[in-house]
Amino acid sequence: MSFSRPSGRAADQLRAVSIQRGFTRHAEGSVLVSFGDTRVLCTASVENKVPPFLRGKGEGWVTAEYGMLPRATHTRSDREAARGRQGGRTLEIQRLIGRSLRACVDRALLGERTITLDCDVLQADGGTRTAAITGAFVALADAVQGLIDRRELKLPASGRTPLVGAVSAISVGIYKGVPVLDLDYAEDSACDTDMNVVMNDGGGFIELQGTAEGHAFRRDELDALLALAERGCAELFAAQRAALAS
Amino acid sequence: MSFSRPSGRAADQLRAVSIQRGFTRHAEGSVLVSFGDTRVLCTASVENKVPPFLRGKGEGWVTAEYGMLPRATHTRSDREAARGRQGGRTLEIQRLIGRSLRACVDRALLGERTITLDCDVLQADGGTRTAAITGAFVALADAVQGLIDRRELKLPASGRTPLVGAVSAISVGIYKGVPVLDLDYAEDSACDTDMNVVMNDGGGFIELQGTAEGHAFRRDELDALLALAERGCAELFAAQRAALAS
Amino acid sequence: MSFSRPSGRAADQLRAVSIQRGFTRHAEGSVLVSFGDTRVLCTASVENKVPPFLRGKGEGWVTAEYGMLPRATHTRSDREAARGRQGGRTLEIQRLIGRSLRACVDRALLGERTITLDCDVLQADGGTRTAAITGAFVALADAVQGLIDRRELKLPASGRTPLVGAVSAISVGIYKGVPVLDLDYAEDSACDTDMNVVMNDGGGFIELQGTAEGHAFRRDELDALLALAERGCAELFAAQRAALAS
Amino acid sequence: MSFSRPSGRAADQLRAVSIQRGFTRHAEGSVLVSFGDTRVLCTASVENKVPPFLRGKGEGWVTAEYGMLPRATHTRSDREAARGRQGGRTLEIQRLIGRSLRACVDRALLGERTITLDCDVLQADGGTRTAAITGAFVALADAVQGLIDRRELKLPASGRTPLVGAVSAISVGIYKGVPVLDLDYAEDSACDTDMNVVMNDGGGFIELQGTAEGHAFRRDELDALLALAERGCAELFAAQRAALAS
Amino acid sequence: MSFSRPSGRAADQLRAVSIQRGFTRHAEGSVLVSFGDTRVLCTASVENKVPPFLRGKGEGWVTAEYGMLPRATHTRSDREAARGRQGGRTLEIQRLIGRSLRACVDRALLGERTITLDCDVLQADGGTRTAAITGAFVALADAVQGLIDRRELKLPASGRTPLVGAVSAISVGIYKGVPVLDLDYAEDSACDTDMNVVMNDGGGFIELQGTAEGHAFRRDELDALLALAERGCAELFAAQRAALAS
Amino acid sequence: MSFSRPSGRAADQLRAVSIQRGFTRHAEGSVLVSFGDTRVLCTASVENKVPPFLRGKGEGWVTAEYGMLPRATHTRSDREAARGRQGGRTLEIQRLIGRSLRACVDRALLGERTITLDCDVLQADGGTRTAAITGAFVALADAVQGLIDRRELKLPASGRTPLVGAVSAISVGIYKGVPVLDLDYAEDSACDTDMNVVMNDGGGFIELQGTAEGHAFRRDELDALLALAERGCAELFAAQRAALAS
Repeated sequence: MSFSRPSGRAADQLRAVSIQRGFTRHAEGSVLVSFGDTRVLCTASVENKVPPFLRGKGEGWVTAEYGMLPRATHTRSDREAARGRQGGRTLEIQRLIGRSLRACVDRALLGERTITLDCDVLQADGGTRTAAITGAFVALADAVQGLIDRRELKLPASGRTPLVGAVSAISVGIYKGVPVLDLDYAEDSACDTDMNVVMNDGGGFIELQGTAEGHAFRRDELDALLALAERGCAELFAAQRAALAS
Repeated sequence: MSFSRPSGRAADQLRAVSIQRGFTRHAEGSVLVSFGDTRVLCTASVENKVPPFLRGKGEGWVTAEYGMLPRATHTRSDREAARGRQGGRTLEIQRLIGRSLRACVDRALLGERTITLDCDVLQADGGTRTAAITGAFVALADAVQGLIDRRELKLPASGRTPLVGAVSAISVGIYKGVPVLDLDYAEDSACDTDMNVVMNDGGGFIELQGTAEGHAFRRDELDALLALAERGCAELFAAQRAALAS
Repeated sequence: MSFSRPSGRAADQLRAVSIQRGFTRHAEGSVLVSFGDTRVLCTASVENKVPPFLRGKGEGWVTAEYGMLPRATHTRSDREAARGRQGGRTLEIQRLIGRSLRACVDRALLGERTITLDCDVLQADGGTRTAAITGAFVALADAVQGLIDRRELKLPASGRTPLVGAVSAISVGIYKGVPVLDLDYAEDSACDTDMNVVMNDGGGFIELQGTAEGHAFRRDELDALLALAERGCAELFAAQRAALAS
Repeated sequence: MSFSRPSGRAADQLRAVSIQRGFTRHAEGSVLVSFGDTRVLCTASVENKVPPFLRGKGEGWVTAEYGMLPRATHTRSDREAARGRQGGRTLEIQRLIGRSLRACVDRALLGERTITLDCDVLQADGGTRTAAITGAFVALADAVQGLIDRRELKLPASGRTPLVGAVSAISVGIYKGVPVLDLDYAEDSACDTDMNVVMNDGGGFIELQGTAEGHAFRRDELDALLALAERGCAELFAAQRAALAS
Repeated sequence: MSFSRPSGRAADQLRAVSIQRGFTRHAEGSVLVSFGDTRVLCTASVENKVPPFLRGKGEGWVTAEYGMLPRATHTRSDREAARGRQGGRTLEIQRLIGRSLRACVDRALLGERTITLDCDVLQADGGTRTAAITGAFVALADAVQGLIDRRELKLPASGRTPLVGAVSAISVGIYKGVPVLDLDYAEDSACDTDMNVVMNDGGGFIELQGTAEGHAFRRDELDALLALAERGCAELFAAQRAALAS
Repeated sequence: MSFSRPSGRAADQLRAVSIQRGFTRHAEGSVLVSFGDTRVLCTASVENKVPPFLRGKGEGWVTAEYGMLPRATHTRSDREAARGRQGGRTLEIQRLIGRSLRACVDRALLGERTITLDCDVLQADGGTRTAAITGAFVALADAVQGLIDRRELKLPASGRTPLVGAVSAISVGIYKGVPVLDLDYAEDSACDTDMNVVMNDGGGFIELQGTAEGHAFRRDELDALLALAERGCAELFAAQRAALAS
């Protein structure tokens, strides 16, 4: 009854989602994704080379890098390039983005190419990693389609493309005792449990990262959170499809 | 029928667990933990200082560092100190260990002290992070008890200690289509889905990190994995209690 | 006669200039500046501290950092945070931006505060450093005005503010033998001489950085370039004023 | 009238210049250059390899590195090797030296070789970068002549050598309102405007780097400074020729 | 008379020495060596590659790396991997270990292989480098024997193996005016002169590193120290032989 | 009979030694020392601060840094500042220089000051570390005398100064089977055994670092080498005294 989210949203309501393709012009895919006030620029870059451990195997690679502009946040953070190293949080997030996107790519069909997804946060208000994954998928789809359109990628007789599904991600958490969808910064800093869920459009889970910041969470709470995440990802897949169709 | 694990274990069987206290003598807590052939030295070091963001707040801090000896693995890995930076995997693991252990400490009762848990892998055969968390808890318990025994820590009238529960961790995964407990290296490198579960002894989940390496996992698979993890952690809590009682 | 610029512009014509204030919401000043296809996000962050060499002197500091998103350019560049160091070009540019902006600030009136100007290139098409300086001035002006509006800054009886003028910057060069204003990437990579000129709105020169990439330049060529730069900066001051008035 | 320079020099007077060839014996060119109390050791090293971006193109490369001994200055500075990174000033200067020297070399005639100019300041009293460029030219000339003398470099039928002119550099500035030539440390730390000018012996400008440290400079001041620089460089070319003839 | 060592040992008495082979299972040689409370894990790793300067020469290489677990010592030391660089002491020790072990290997007979000796201190009580050298020899011997046993190494007709002798090391010093053998931490921190001696089993000296921490040492003191070291190394060779025979 | 050194020197003959004081003017002590073609610039810098571990103890500190100009050697070496780290050899040498010089200083009499000895090799021909120690002592003596002359250092009633003796260093080695003094580069790269000996002018040994590069050395060889070193250091003490008296 007395429960209300700082933003006034319903417990199972996403923030306004926007996926703008072609935000910059040099990259093979370039998407500005917004989850409310969180805005992430995701670019996909195609290069005709692979990391050393894949050379000569005929397979491709998909990887990600993540960054946050120093003043994307309430108070200015140090610039990682100036400090001389990427922090643990950055490395953790970019590893997560890379694994998530690789889950929807058939690397054998990609050929000896690397697609790098650069996810740079222009403005942060919670959920930057889930927005990044959701937007990076669209940039990746554009980059793969470009390879096909320019006939750089030879498709097999079956016509199968290297993209074997869609991927999106959303956060869920327990805020003031209530499971809620898509935490913003105000909720994120106050919530007890926080979970990032990455799914594919076949309803399967790709990544699950839950952390109890306050009290540990019970099985029934987990079940409620997973149900919310499934609903949120379904909406995000629709938003991705709409963006790609436009 | 035809299903069998490389080690011959049952699907819900842990490897032999051993928790040896007092393995080295300088640290306030020093534990050699073994999950089968995986062996991790966990030491707890108490220092009378806290990181800058906590100074003057009367609270303590618990943190962790993780390392792998270069030849803990089948083939030699580079020494991170020689390369000049800790890798993303290392940072991710030590952040996980730190968060997990903080979940069982009342930092206000700890006072302005830092307890650092150094988890160094002497021999790796899968599951180093879960062994590290399970062993580090015992080292932490010894360090806290030492503070009490030496009367460096003044307990409140209630007699409550800074330790508010126990923490253990185990991996689960889907190997050849079957959910199994406590993956060893042979299983880990071949399995489709891999999840690390950190629990407290009240049955709550502290951390959940699941990754689909091959196909995405369904809700029913997830349920089976969580049930296995609950069973594994229960056995680990018993092993911790036995070690602390000896 | 046969001379024409790749963009079809006249020799003394700037690219379309746009200065959008309030592009992100956390920073005390946040400006997206475009010189044609070059787009730079300039934020001004105010912090109540100064570098060690100024502590206790009652003076403020103004400094700048510069970065380029990896795919701001035609081909992807390495992320400086991942490489672990800022390159010489980056350091050179951020030092230039910092010196240029300090030239329009009375640091004694600023008090013991630091204003950091982060200039991050979202899309590059030549002239990123001149766009950065021109945009950063507007972000700085917004940050200073905010301090005054929030009465954090006490103005002297004279009513003088810490901003003692305006600063803008433009590039000029000799392209196919003809002096031209505001080089884009196509011209920049082909031109013989390239000069960046920073001016104040009193008509004085703050920085002059000319480089002969092909043949050395003569005094008469230099005179022609400086005349173009004066004209370009005059237009930029008008654009800044219009943006600040809106 | 009342104007006087700390050193007693006339406004258009260089400090005593000395160019000593063969200062050390291993390098292909080794010059100790002095502009008054500023002393820089410039060595030219020839290696039969080029950077990756030039491999297989049949062209050579000329590059520079700059360093300052920790106690070249009034108070000891940190050793950059110990700090683990070269500072922005160092990188800026070595990039300037490299560009300046490349301006007098026909890299196609040099063949697939790199000549590295190491400029190490033994004692600093202002003007280290201009002394470095002036001295490095002589070291470069010795290295190129050595290649010709040892017949390692095949000259074309025209007899043209890779050296297409001479390069020298001098600083000018406005000290107490008066334009002066070749600033020493006492003037440099007190002057309003400071400009480094690199010229070739055909009277062309190669680099121009002017900075208004106090008030911005006007066009007529700039003209006076450039006239001084032309005169100073003319004297330096004579000193270089005398040194090379000895 | 009144002289006594903190440990109660005689002046020429080693601490209890233990050499345990096969301590971990992945490495080609794995030895836990103890000199009293000093415990070092020494592993030998064989790789079929050599450093760039040896490629194609048909020779092998032997090198060492040294590390100390953060809480091997009385108070916790920083983790070198986290600090981002190995300290001078670490580099000095690992260079010493590498040189010492190379002295007993015929690198031409080893073929194009590298054997890396990782010496990681689990617990420190003085003399870690001498324990490391002594234990690393046994790990090296196991690795070489393994190559022979697996017929990866073809021995010459003479039957000579790449191992041309044994190497051991011990510290000696002047404690309270008396020359003593095998300093422990209590002695090491209080002694005037400290010398590490590396010998081969032919009675020759391989390395000698003596440092006067308090007063300089005289020739007669040096002679006494060398005699003690010869005796200590003789005992260590016996311990190595016993370990290798078991 | 047939034995001869590449330089034609007798086995017990030093190279020409030169010690030039006041080589640069800013440092409190500045010495260019030459051992034949090896030339090292040694400066002593006095600063009124001590490292953290000595703060408030009333004692001073003496430390050293060592560097080699990139083209001090036959072929150009990488600049350590550009590589971003000092190599193991550099760290080892500067630790040796620092320990050696501290051996002749009463740090309690020095007061809370640090004297830093920067030893930069301008030209290398073997023996750079021994030349550096020998020259650094003279720079140190000048710096200490300057403190006394300027009355910054209050001497005790006894009149004792912080300098408690002199320190010099020389290398010895076995070249073609013959013990020789003061190895130059040609000998150093070909010799079997190489030892650096640091002595004080009371005939005591401060540091002894011997390495068998080829065969291990016997006790009688060691005795011969030490006798040569004693003779060499005696000559160096005379050269230091002569330089300080001039």
